[in-house]
Formats: sequence, C-alpha cells, structure tokens
Amino acid sequence: MKYYIAKNLPCTFEEAVKKTTEELQKEGFGVLSEINIHEKLKDKLGVKFNRYRILGACNPPSAYKALLSEIHIGVMLPCNVIVRELDDKTVEVSAVDPMASMMAVENEELGPIAEEIKDRLKRVIQAI
Amino acid sequence: MKYYIAKNLPCTFEEAVKKTTEELQKEGFGVLSEINIHEKLKDKLGVKFNRYRILGACNPPSAYKALLSEIHIGVMLPCNVIVRELDDKTVEVSAVDPMASMMAVENEELGPIAEEIKDRLKRVIQAI
Repeated sequence: MKYYIAKNLPCTFEEAVKKTTEELQKEGFGVLSEINIHEKLKDKLGVKFNRYRILGACNPPSAYKALLSEIHIGVMLPCNVIVRELDDKTVEVSAVDPMASMMAVENEELGPIAEEIKDRLKRVIQAI
Repeated sequence: MKYYIAKNLPCTFEEAVKKTTEELQKEGFGVLSEINIHEKLKDKLGVKFNRYRILGACNPPSAYKALLSEIHIGVMLPCNVIVRELDDKTVEVSAVDPMASMMAVENEELGPIAEEIKDRLKRVIQAI
C-alpha cells in the first residue's frame, strides 16, 4: 500500500518549506511541530544526511472529531509532511496518507475523517 | 489490532510527563516535539479538553536505520507517547505500537526495527 503522496519541486529547501506551509494553511492545517531529522542525526550519530524536515500538520476540527471518536488517536497525530532535499535544485515534499497510518485502528467513524484529511493533503501536494 | 501500550499513573500531569521523559531517555529516546492538544483545541475551536500532550520520541540509531531502509518512513516518525489527564490524580500514558503505525509499509527490513522500538517502548511503560 502506498502510504504517502509526493511531489518533486524545482526550488530550494527553504522555498519548499514556505510554499508547503502556506498551502497547508489554505487547507486548514497548522504546523504544530517541526523536526530537522538531518540535524538530529548529525548531533547524535555524527552522520551526514540530506536536509529532511518533518512538519507536523494538524487540522483542528478534524483532529477534534477524531479524538472524540477514538481518544488514543493522538499516537498517530499530527499528520506528517516531509520536506526533503534531493539536490541543490530539487526538493521532494511528501505527505502521509492517513488512511495508511491509521490502518490498524479499528473504528468505522475514523474512515470518513481520514478520507477527508487525505483529500486535503492531496490538494496541498497538487497546489505546491 | 491494539495500536498502543498504556498505563494509568496515580500522579499529577506534570509528574507523569517528567517520569515518562526520564524513562524514554533511559531507553535512548529523545523527545523531539511536544504538542499540547488541549491548548490547540482551546485556541482554535474554543473547546475544553482534558490535558493531552503528545511527546514525539525518537531513538536516533533506530530512526537512522529505518530511514536508510525506507526513506519516506519519516511520515510515521517520531514515535508518539501521549500523556493524558484522566482526573486530578490519575494520568494515562500511552505509547504507539510502531508495528501498528507502520503496518501499511511493505518493507521486510522495517519489521525488526519496529519490533525493537516496540520492546523499548514497552519497557518505558513498564518502568513509569
């Protein structure tokens, strides 16, 4: 099962982060966390890794609905969007497919919520 | 499928956060993100929600191994641990089961990594 939706952008890393954050906002997502994986790997293991930032995106009304229906769903939240440098001029942006990440959660009420969020993330990836 | 490992603690919310963070550290996890869901829901939707913090826990050597094997696995990282207030004297701590969150990812090399992380998170929950 494909568990993410991705697109390559011909721009710099920071431009891709900016554009992605803007398009997430248009679809009602705030970015609640930002993790620079490359920095953590450098600090903790001393390894070099291409720039790789995880943006934790959350659409509050959908998160609230999901939590009311399944209180432990926070272990799968927020929805991650990765901005990853391929080379100086190419950046890949990939968003989780929430239908995939929540696959193990048996709760019929979650299906339509995950589907709506997937549609929103698809539109974000299309728009960037 | 059970997608989390949980335990109730007879203490305050902040004590539970402290204890959980300490035990995560003993198992090699740093906390890379902290999201106060109750604050976000209050700010964005004006709803009252019991205190609910998502700790994004990451074990760098395992994360690195997983990324080398599956570059998009960042959409499922870090491993979330929820600290959730049930009442004034009881807090529930629940950790994601990475075998469940990564269920949709078809990569045989990930299985042993997810299993090791699950064992570490189990020990954290046992120890708190």
